[in-house]
Amino acid sequence: MRDGKAYLNRSAQRIADAMIEDADRLGVGHSRGSLGEHLIDAGASSPGGIEAGLRIVEICMGGLGTVSAAFGAGKWPYSVDVRSSQPVLACLGSQYAGWNLSHEKYFAMGSGPVRALARVEPLFEKITYREPDAESSVVVLETAAPPPAAIVEKVSKTTGLDPEKLTFIYAPTQSLTGSMQIVGRVLEVALHKAHDLNFPLEAIVDGAGRAPIPAPHPDFLQAMGRTNDAIIYGGIVQLYVRGSSAAARDLAEQLPSRTSRDHGQPFADIFKKFKGDFYAIDPHLFSPAEVIVTAIETGDTFRSGNSDTAMLERSLG
Amino acid sequence: MRDGKAYLNRSAQRIADAMIEDADRLGVGHSRGSLGEHLIDAGASSPGGIEAGLRIVEICMGGLGTVSAAFGAGKWPYSVDVRSSQPVLACLGSQYAGWNLSHEKYFAMGSGPVRALARVEPLFEKITYREPDAESSVVVLETAAPPPAAIVEKVSKTTGLDPEKLTFIYAPTQSLTGSMQIVGRVLEVALHKAHDLNFPLEAIVDGAGRAPIPAPHPDFLQAMGRTNDAIIYGGIVQLYVRGSSAAARDLAEQLPSRTSRDHGQPFADIFKKFKGDFYAIDPHLFSPAEVIVTAIETGDTFRSGNSDTAMLERSLG
Amino acid sequence: MRDGKAYLNRSAQRIADAMIEDADRLGVGHSRGSLGEHLIDAGASSPGGIEAGLRIVEICMGGLGTVSAAFGAGKWPYSVDVRSSQPVLACLGSQYAGWNLSHEKYFAMGSGPVRALARVEPLFEKITYREPDAESSVVVLETAAPPPAAIVEKVSKTTGLDPEKLTFIYAPTQSLTGSMQIVGRVLEVALHKAHDLNFPLEAIVDGAGRAPIPAPHPDFLQAMGRTNDAIIYGGIVQLYVRGSSAAARDLAEQLPSRTSRDHGQPFADIFKKFKGDFYAIDPHLFSPAEVIVTAIETGDTFRSGNSDTAMLERSLG
Repeated sequence: MRDGKAYLNRSAQRIADAMIEDADRLGVGHSRGSLGEHLIDAGASSPGGIEAGLRIVEICMGGLGTVSAAFGAGKWPYSVDVRSSQPVLACLGSQYAGWNLSHEKYFAMGSGPVRALARVEPLFEKITYREPDAESSVVVLETAAPPPAAIVEKVSKTTGLDPEKLTFIYAPTQSLTGSMQIVGRVLEVALHKAHDLNFPLEAIVDGAGRAPIPAPHPDFLQAMGRTNDAIIYGGIVQLYVRGSSAAARDLAEQLPSRTSRDHGQPFADIFKKFKGDFYAIDPHLFSPAEVIVTAIETGDTFRSGNSDTAMLERSLG
Repeated sequence: MRDGKAYLNRSAQRIADAMIEDADRLGVGHSRGSLGEHLIDAGASSPGGIEAGLRIVEICMGGLGTVSAAFGAGKWPYSVDVRSSQPVLACLGSQYAGWNLSHEKYFAMGSGPVRALARVEPLFEKITYREPDAESSVVVLETAAPPPAAIVEKVSKTTGLDPEKLTFIYAPTQSLTGSMQIVGRVLEVALHKAHDLNFPLEAIVDGAGRAPIPAPHPDFLQAMGRTNDAIIYGGIVQLYVRGSSAAARDLAEQLPSRTSRDHGQPFADIFKKFKGDFYAIDPHLFSPAEVIVTAIETGDTFRSGNSDTAMLERSLG
Repeated sequence: MRDGKAYLNRSAQRIADAMIEDADRLGVGHSRGSLGEHLIDAGASSPGGIEAGLRIVEICMGGLGTVSAAFGAGKWPYSVDVRSSQPVLACLGSQYAGWNLSHEKYFAMGSGPVRALARVEPLFEKITYREPDAESSVVVLETAAPPPAAIVEKVSKTTGLDPEKLTFIYAPTQSLTGSMQIVGRVLEVALHKAHDLNFPLEAIVDGAGRAPIPAPHPDFLQAMGRTNDAIIYGGIVQLYVRGSSAAARDLAEQLPSRTSRDHGQPFADIFKKFKGDFYAIDPHLFSPAEVIVTAIETGDTFRSGNSDTAMLERSLG
């Protein structure tokens, strides 16, 4: 995509505005924060739900993704489908929760198109796309509380946008909205791991994924475990890439979660094993169970990995 | 949802207006009745079809549901998917065909958002939501003929809306539209049975369902039988509920159709056994074959029931 | 549908205009040709993708179809779903690539709603619908190059529309867009074969289909082979027809690809066997693997054919 149309932020803003318009239907609450920022509570004091979650995934992807929920087969048939013909921008330029917006005891990683404005993460060395003309922006936070004023100010200063031009959407991991929002990352984790594996981002031209929608859990650790396990042990992704068959085969073989040293246990157990040190966990664990990679310039397709129904049952309940 | 925005009736009216705009494409006919009421014939003299049926399900749900058709697996792969993050209002406040609009030889049970205006059914003792500000309304009737003037007047008086502000959509059970319209109730029947089982409605926060689209049949009894069997022997529902695990487990165990005394035969045979006395049939038969209930406050999920392919084959042909 | 609203061309134009508006997101290029005609490059010099392909299928169907992509089961889970409640107009009046727009070394068969304006094919003897009031039109071409001026002039003269009122969308068989565009014909090939079998078109009232999305291949022959095989060995269609059960049964039995003399090999091999003479191949090969036909006036449903996973694996890779 060319710069200059603020596609991600404008698209996300339209979806966020529609969420406010449909607040009752979606079970979300809209208010203004102390600096005038818009706050959408999508699962903390407000109930939220599947529909709110689907819309937030679309916001996270900067309007560059199509997201839906439908029934598949198996014990966890209700699933989310995500696809994008701009997977790098949608997933890495926007959806990845990579901007640290923590402050004192408030822990939050910012997701959404605001990241393409802020461009403070190393990841943006590889993403040249810019939106200098954005007139507003949307931040998605996996938290139970709105951001403190210091964080609103930080986002405002970094983006050059007044607080009243910012919308912060938040829902905790334990909420139904949160479950949807996280499992809607099935394609994003594949893109992020591909990047970690040094696969050239510009070679990934299209992609889609599906994962079961896990039941939320009131305990944070269990909730986080389930959403991760839904992807790690139940997610599937189809990528279309440019380049050689060898590169596509390598990507397919390395991409599934089973290549990780920490694969083979429910995520909550792994997290406990590392005493809650998230960053001690092998980052290569965060990827779909099953991967199909098609090399569009050679016509070859490579598959690797499998969903693990026993593990899903153990984790998702 | 809060009162005062007439969400259900305004949303349904928009979809009904679009049906009139797209009448040719949908194979439906639009005319005005003797009192100026709008009439949409969606499967009687006009052919109707799957697309008309999908839109009518959305109208029935007061615009609070998402409805689509796609292929699944099995002998009856073409299926309908329904979901709502406001399942009680969508299904019980609007979709349930609970308002008796019969007159002399004309038999019809009214469905759609008009019911949330009329509020004449006992069910509305449990549904506090109101739409006093609705400026128009839509009534869906599973019939082969438009309502007689006496029924139009009854709806007009009960809702306080002039007849020209009312749209009546009708399609017989035997039509393709009718098949879709009825099987699109897969989630609704689960909600209604949950209510019958005294499960608190306010605890049902989200839901989705799928059922095979049965072939229409020219004989009313067979057509009615098939649409019911598609749900009773082929439908699946996922509910998200608040409250204890014990309550969710009880709901999951009691909700599937197999708990009914009359389960185990094609619906048309059951109907004949009771000599056509619909109300002699165990109301607990009207529910999906398979049910998944997730207790979002405890994180537990409970499953019960199974689709019955042999019975589907016997009934659906 | 009644004449006089130019439904197909107006609907397709709206989708084409949106493609131009979203050109960056879709990876398509927009330019003007030497006569002022609009050109959308959706997979030649521009990358295109799945989303571009889905929109082109909707354009091909004159806005009378619903098209989506989602995951199913099996080795080629990522699939396209197509449906229409006006299948004859959508598929034969518009989508079928039946208008020869070749010129000297440029070979192209025109698809899309322009055909319903031009009406130069024998097929239109059976399709009475007309759009004399169309003010613009869209032509879809499975080619790697835009049409030469002589073809633009031919379309302009035949339709009576100035070149600047014409939009030509093109993508080669080998592109991701091309794969989508072709496999999105799973319902169309069933309609066309039904017509070849002398089944009365006016009796086909509704339909839907699904097929796996094949990987594109850089070699034209392989690419063409895969898109055809995805339908021939992996496609499924559900048709709803009027008329007798006997006629519906005959249609179901004759419609699947396996009734063809040339069934049983990858399409690329068949093509080579006939030394590249496309018209020497049995036209009855071009049809879905599996067919379900429901006779709505009698209630009977007939099934025939099966998807052939071994052949899909051999062809699609």
